[in-house]
Amino acid sequence: MTTTLQSFVAGRWVGTQAKQALRSAINGAVIAHTHEETLNFEEMVAYARTTGLQTLLKSHFQDRARVLKALAVFLMERKEALYAISAHTGATRSDSWIDVEGGIGTLFAYSSIGGKDLPSSNVLHEGPPMRLGANNHFIGSHVLVPRRGIALHINAFNFPIWGMLEKFAPSFLAGMPCLVKPASATSYVAEAAVRLMMESGLLPAGSLQLIVGSTGDLFERLEEPDVVTFTGSADTAMQLRSHPNVLRRSIPFNAEADSLNCAILAPDVTPDDPEFELYVKEVAREMSAKAGQKCTAIRRAIVPRHLVDAVGAALKARLAKIVVGDPALEGVRMGALASHAQQADVMEKVALLAQGNQVLLGAGDGFRPKGEGTLNGAFFAPTLLRCDNPLHNPNVHNVEAFGPVSTLMPYDDFEEGLHLATLGRGSLVGTLVTKTPALAAQAVPSFAAWHGRLLVLDREAALESTGHGSPLPKLKHGGPGRAGGGEELGGLRSVKHFLQRCAVQGSPTMMSAVTGEYQRGGAVIESEIHPFRRHFEDVEVGMSLLTHRRTVSEADIVNFGGLSGDYFYMHFDEVAAKASPFGQRIAHGYFVLSAAAGLFVSPAPGPVLANYGLENLRFVTPVAIGDTIQARLTAKRKIDRPPRDDQPAQGVIGWDVAVTNQRGELCASYEILTLVAKREVEAG
Amino acid sequence: MTTTLQSFVAGRWVGTQAKQALRSAINGAVIAHTHEETLNFEEMVAYARTTGLQTLLKSHFQDRARVLKALAVFLMERKEALYAISAHTGATRSDSWIDVEGGIGTLFAYSSIGGKDLPSSNVLHEGPPMRLGANNHFIGSHVLVPRRGIALHINAFNFPIWGMLEKFAPSFLAGMPCLVKPASATSYVAEAAVRLMMESGLLPAGSLQLIVGSTGDLFERLEEPDVVTFTGSADTAMQLRSHPNVLRRSIPFNAEADSLNCAILAPDVTPDDPEFELYVKEVAREMSAKAGQKCTAIRRAIVPRHLVDAVGAALKARLAKIVVGDPALEGVRMGALASHAQQADVMEKVALLAQGNQVLLGAGDGFRPKGEGTLNGAFFAPTLLRCDNPLHNPNVHNVEAFGPVSTLMPYDDFEEGLHLATLGRGSLVGTLVTKTPALAAQAVPSFAAWHGRLLVLDREAALESTGHGSPLPKLKHGGPGRAGGGEELGGLRSVKHFLQRCAVQGSPTMMSAVTGEYQRGGAVIESEIHPFRRHFEDVEVGMSLLTHRRTVSEADIVNFGGLSGDYFYMHFDEVAAKASPFGQRIAHGYFVLSAAAGLFVSPAPGPVLANYGLENLRFVTPVAIGDTIQARLTAKRKIDRPPRDDQPAQGVIGWDVAVTNQRGELCASYEILTLVAKREVEAG
Repeated sequence: MTTTLQSFVAGRWVGTQAKQALRSAINGAVIAHTHEETLNFEEMVAYARTTGLQTLLKSHFQDRARVLKALAVFLMERKEALYAISAHTGATRSDSWIDVEGGIGTLFAYSSIGGKDLPSSNVLHEGPPMRLGANNHFIGSHVLVPRRGIALHINAFNFPIWGMLEKFAPSFLAGMPCLVKPASATSYVAEAAVRLMMESGLLPAGSLQLIVGSTGDLFERLEEPDVVTFTGSADTAMQLRSHPNVLRRSIPFNAEADSLNCAILAPDVTPDDPEFELYVKEVAREMSAKAGQKCTAIRRAIVPRHLVDAVGAALKARLAKIVVGDPALEGVRMGALASHAQQADVMEKVALLAQGNQVLLGAGDGFRPKGEGTLNGAFFAPTLLRCDNPLHNPNVHNVEAFGPVSTLMPYDDFEEGLHLATLGRGSLVGTLVTKTPALAAQAVPSFAAWHGRLLVLDREAALESTGHGSPLPKLKHGGPGRAGGGEELGGLRSVKHFLQRCAVQGSPTMMSAVTGEYQRGGAVIESEIHPFRRHFEDVEVGMSLLTHRRTVSEADIVNFGGLSGDYFYMHFDEVAAKASPFGQRIAHGYFVLSAAAGLFVSPAPGPVLANYGLENLRFVTPVAIGDTIQARLTAKRKIDRPPRDDQPAQGVIGWDVAVTNQRGELCASYEILTLVAKREVEAG
Repeated sequence: MTTTLQSFVAGRWVGTQAKQALRSAINGAVIAHTHEETLNFEEMVAYARTTGLQTLLKSHFQDRARVLKALAVFLMERKEALYAISAHTGATRSDSWIDVEGGIGTLFAYSSIGGKDLPSSNVLHEGPPMRLGANNHFIGSHVLVPRRGIALHINAFNFPIWGMLEKFAPSFLAGMPCLVKPASATSYVAEAAVRLMMESGLLPAGSLQLIVGSTGDLFERLEEPDVVTFTGSADTAMQLRSHPNVLRRSIPFNAEADSLNCAILAPDVTPDDPEFELYVKEVAREMSAKAGQKCTAIRRAIVPRHLVDAVGAALKARLAKIVVGDPALEGVRMGALASHAQQADVMEKVALLAQGNQVLLGAGDGFRPKGEGTLNGAFFAPTLLRCDNPLHNPNVHNVEAFGPVSTLMPYDDFEEGLHLATLGRGSLVGTLVTKTPALAAQAVPSFAAWHGRLLVLDREAALESTGHGSPLPKLKHGGPGRAGGGEELGGLRSVKHFLQRCAVQGSPTMMSAVTGEYQRGGAVIESEIHPFRRHFEDVEVGMSLLTHRRTVSEADIVNFGGLSGDYFYMHFDEVAAKASPFGQRIAHGYFVLSAAAGLFVSPAPGPVLANYGLENLRFVTPVAIGDTIQARLTAKRKIDRPPRDDQPAQGVIGWDVAVTNQRGELCASYEILTLVAKREVEAG
């Protein structure tokens, strides 16, 4: 393939004239060219703001979650095509796995997050609602809604697919049309992935456009509701976030910059502990995976001074065994850097790091990549440095060699080790290897202040650890300071970054309408037939049942104690109960809960399949002997569920339950979660 | 008082030489001077980073919440001194109430938020934790920790006390030493408040410093863990957030700029509806309160075209009745602008707004402020403009006259009305007056995308409404775009802005130590005495009880049905239960819950006073007839509570409960919340 890459603009592929040549990292052969044509960013932005926003906002969160899943399935079936293209970047199969399947896995993960945690509307209620007046006429809460702007995603060269999809997934789910700009060096991989995404026919028109090459005057065209995300160097982050248009319009700018991540070996670990080997393995793996071109790679190995020789020897032995070369060859475990430019850059940075420090292992140790033509490739020797005075050598904390390069450094006491970590001025991720929970508890508050993610590694965690260098969809990715100060992933958190949060105030009835969830005190719909006898589709939020009443007698308490075995003195000991703040015996809370179920249950088989959970139960006013209770059951919220092959069509309904006494006082308040069948079940 | 104001730097008051004269807004008399001396920002920052951080991080969230309460009480007792000083700013008593008591109220609110929602440590666990492997050896979650940096708060002139305290409260709670820089024009009010705060002796050394005058080279001295917050004009926000040091170090910069807020009258409201008058009242009040010098004031009144005359007439009549003058005089309802500079600025802006528009009411209508010397004051006439072509008059959406000035404008259909709102390019707050829940539900998704807060006002909400212009501590303050793109207040949300979020991964045992909360699967402490027999202080997180077992029989189900009245077919109808997915009759979920309580309850009076609530209940595996259940009860988390006069000393303990069957399968999983007495109770 020596094609000219194309941008995808306003629904069509653009670009026929070759510009910059992009070369194989393995042997230097030309793979593709960027295109010469200047893009029409006015058209691109207008298309996103009209067609893109219109099509996206016709759908809701749950719809878009389903699109992400279908897209993930489509791409997974075609992953081998992506692996083949990815190989040109110098990646081994397992390096490409991170990019290809890691990226597709992120689509799956966000589909699942959307399906589980987002409503079938475009208003996400972020409670809890709160009373703003004494009599519940005026309440407040927060909603999150689509910003009605576009998301511009600017990616780094190292993970052209994962980097794109981990940004696309949450912003698409949030309802933002996306403009994606990959780094030119590996834009041929991103272009191939976008081509597949377009071929799938699954994406609404205008929801994704691709920029191969420069962003031209695009930043001038951004507006207040837009969002920019960036992954790359700290210098480029600085340049882009300084753009006056971004600053003047308060456009959220999320940066994720590479950083000088560290791994600390705690002072409790001895060379005989399994944690010692875990530490060495983790550092070596992070140096060699993706040839160290990961923004999360361990650049600083911080160890107790008395162990620095032992760790150095163990690391050197392990690194020396790694076969570097063309990943197509058997036995090769580390590939090339992505380009000659990277190779030159890493070499320059290693020279800076070597000043005043010892090179324990490097290119001088007979490095020769395996495979034909690899001398024209962008290979780099695993390089381990040792800095004995890290408190006084700023380079090892500031200079990032974006390759298989790490510096080993000792500390004298644990506090000093933690202090060395902070000299990176903010990192994406740090690892602490220890076997002592108390040491972890001591270290985390200061360690966490400077990091976006921490791995606490011991022999147990190692059984399932995903490793220092792996961002996970449900955990936050992005660190403070040098690391860019941003937040990506982290489950629903990242979707919220692409939504606008708004506090809303109003009467409970208005707030029920606005949030799509019944708010206590709002107008209810008195249901003529029992709400539990309605199918999912037929239950409206606000449908309600006020039950018959029940007088609680001493016999109930006695029988309930006998049946449950709960003879707590407040229910059974007249003497102690009188001396208590309640002044008398009261019914078991769980009796009140059970009796309330008895009041509102509808015994015959029907659409309500199961009560599988309960939330926010509070016992407010105690129920005394002779009190008469009554329950109000109101449909609070509906969560549609996509159909699954292994079960009848169903959805979740959360019901608000308020149990009151004869004086109208609230005795118990909670929400029950039920599975409710859809009508189709009976037809089928 | 014609003193020279002082800054508070490194524990001492600095400044003796007078510089800029600050004048009364009422009569132009000199009130105070800023000081001539240049501050030593190196010393100030160093003091915050050493003494300030050390003293603050010796305390924990709960300690600091208690300090905020004590401080609020102290200031409330001295509020009249602040009212007296505030009067010089041209404020009426009720204007000053917003600043003085609103500010102190925010301290109370954050004390309560801290006491209720934050732990007695400096690690806030932000769950839920999640399994990262199949066998629960490796889990992940998020913690929030103090950033270990300083907070620089830059405030506007209009609310020198509230503006300072609403920023100070959450950042102090988060453990950040604060540097406060008030606007010079009303810095004499802020200085008086800080003097009282220092006199209280309640604040840890270094937790608060005050800058009267310029910030000099302070921005150069900020570092990665620091945070800047700003309230003021969009231009100054732009200038400060562009500072290279802020951008390069990824220092969070939170801006809250005034904006062109609107109030929309929905098309369903007729002049006979109470909502019509509510609308007119709200607009008039927002124009006159604080003489319109509120960043939340209504600048644009958007109404249906057929009602524009009626609204104009009603507004004019209401505004004409407002007596403007020296607030010391009886009957005066509107005071002066804060300074002559403001007066000149507003006059200039009104001239811009009047271009092409009609002035319905203004200075030309015989305006004359009441009181002696007021012609030398900074008074301004309530000014109502009318713009009949708001789609084609950019000034009315862009030019903010920061005084008692508003523009009335019509829309032809509701969508156009909502579109007009967006022309402000992002606002702090918007109001929608309607009587129709469906209209509110229709409007909010687009309205909310451009706003930080929305008030939906109808006759019910009006019974308790706190009004369009009032930010509340628990609701987010700050809007997108033009409004600065920031977030303040919003309850715990704003505390989190001053903390660093970090994802943490490790074994359940390590994660229990790190989060301070027991994580299921982590090592437990088998308690020799029943954990319910221990006082609050004696319960350690992780202390656990594995109960005896109980075989569930058909008699249990029958008896439980009889007692509760719950005859659901899954428990009682052999035929229907067999046909269900469970294939057999199963025990009531609430029976399992009740029987589990019977297994772990400790009947005699003891330290556990009550089980007042339950969270996250999930019924996992059904319990069938003949199954044998057992419960494990483990102390999950402890929430210390400050002592109260009306109750014995106690704290909250959340207990993790796992009910399993004879095969070790999880049947029910939940957390119970209990009140547990402290040891002192028995001593007392």
